[in-house]
Amino acid sequence: MTRRRKIYEGKAKILYEGPEPGTLIQYFKDDATAFNAQKKGTITGKGVINNRVSEHVFSRLAHIGIPTHFIRRLNMREQLIRQVEIVPIEVIVRNVAAGTLSKRLGIEEGTPLPHTLLEYCYKDDSLGDPLVAEEHIACFGWASQEEMQDISSMAIRINDFMCGMFAAIGIRLIDFKLEFGRLYDGDFSRIILADEISPDGCRLWDIETGEKLDKDRFRRDLGGEAEAYQEVARRLGLMPEEGEGAVLDMVTHRLRKGK
Amino acid sequence: MTRRRKIYEGKAKILYEGPEPGTLIQYFKDDATAFNAQKKGTITGKGVINNRVSEHVFSRLAHIGIPTHFIRRLNMREQLIRQVEIVPIEVIVRNVAAGTLSKRLGIEEGTPLPHTLLEYCYKDDSLGDPLVAEEHIACFGWASQEEMQDISSMAIRINDFMCGMFAAIGIRLIDFKLEFGRLYDGDFSRIILADEISPDGCRLWDIETGEKLDKDRFRRDLGGEAEAYQEVARRLGLMPEEGEGAVLDMVTHRLRKGK
Repeated sequence: MTRRRKIYEGKAKILYEGPEPGTLIQYFKDDATAFNAQKKGTITGKGVINNRVSEHVFSRLAHIGIPTHFIRRLNMREQLIRQVEIVPIEVIVRNVAAGTLSKRLGIEEGTPLPHTLLEYCYKDDSLGDPLVAEEHIACFGWASQEEMQDISSMAIRINDFMCGMFAAIGIRLIDFKLEFGRLYDGDFSRIILADEISPDGCRLWDIETGEKLDKDRFRRDLGGEAEAYQEVARRLGLMPEEGEGAVLDMVTHRLRKGK
Repeated sequence: MTRRRKIYEGKAKILYEGPEPGTLIQYFKDDATAFNAQKKGTITGKGVINNRVSEHVFSRLAHIGIPTHFIRRLNMREQLIRQVEIVPIEVIVRNVAAGTLSKRLGIEEGTPLPHTLLEYCYKDDSLGDPLVAEEHIACFGWASQEEMQDISSMAIRINDFMCGMFAAIGIRLIDFKLEFGRLYDGDFSRIILADEISPDGCRLWDIETGEKLDKDRFRRDLGGEAEAYQEVARRLGLMPEEGEGAVLDMVTHRLRKGK
């Protein structure tokens, strides 16, 4: 592989210059962080699974008319994406109280919310991605009102689709995080879905057992995180491809040996 | 004075049953708290001044058509008010970055905001009055959308009026807190301004010197808090009445002796 220009390295992904202008290569690492990177670790094989799951979800969202940055998966850990200007707002879509919402408002984890709740956080690691309201977003010009309207209506549609998709495979979608970007066409731009959708940024509970199949296994030292990620991929019908099987077998083998 | 039934005791005020149904007596204490009552103290004479300042501001707001709970001042530390159901949302109106906003979003104190910013906090001491967005307020039914519309438009009008009022006496209105209540008339209710407006819940900086004339003197151990409160009352043209003079002289005397 020729040396490529690294554009950005985040906690779980690296972005490289793409083969054509306006494209990037998104590389999925196995690195896991939590609590604003105060906790660090590795979930072996996570990058491979997240690449596959995100491909799967983004492709299906495109089918219902949600524009996304995803072009195609290139290999086990990489996908080709459209270059966008990331809107500095993390959108949290919540169906059931959990995590920071439960803590902040004193609502027991697992309490269904009266209706879907959208939360916005200002993307700034040094500030710990603080919760903000639409008033802050408007006041500081982080996104226009039209953009926020596009973002919130897409977030609601994505949530409906994903609730259905996960319900069909026995998983309850508790909450998840979305990021959006501006795709420029000359002086104009439109909002499209960016980043990834994977067990890293979703809370996924088994409908029957309530078992957590997401990054909370890592955050809360529950163990079995690699197996949980694999279980999500397996239920979504994403069988390992040539080469991936070896990685995942190795992971499973190591996990079993570790027991 | 006959013994009255205490309805509620807060950090800076006590509410007693009023002389007629639908009324309460609001008593202003000298107790001062900060950082969600982690810091406690007394600002001698504060209750007397806040009673006068709040009377002054609420009366003038009524003149521009803002409905308030204020009926009339009864004595040095008490005012007669309408009984309302308090909306569990604190409204923070910000013109210049300071306090928690500066800390949360990393904006230097004193930076003028691009435009007036309304923030909402859920009133719950045990949770530390967490910041919330209109989405949370709607999701948990803390106020209806119509109520929030009334609240936000009143908050903007109150801010405009108060900016003018304080500018006229050489004071910059940095930010302040408002609380609203539901006044019931049978099955119907309407939103009116409740609580108080005083240097306890406002940030007031001298326009020329930048000197703080508000509770930050107490929060940040700057000293001279009683004198700062008196200075605000004096500039508003609120001269001590019979009896109050003695209290305030005593305060000033004690403060001078303390130097």
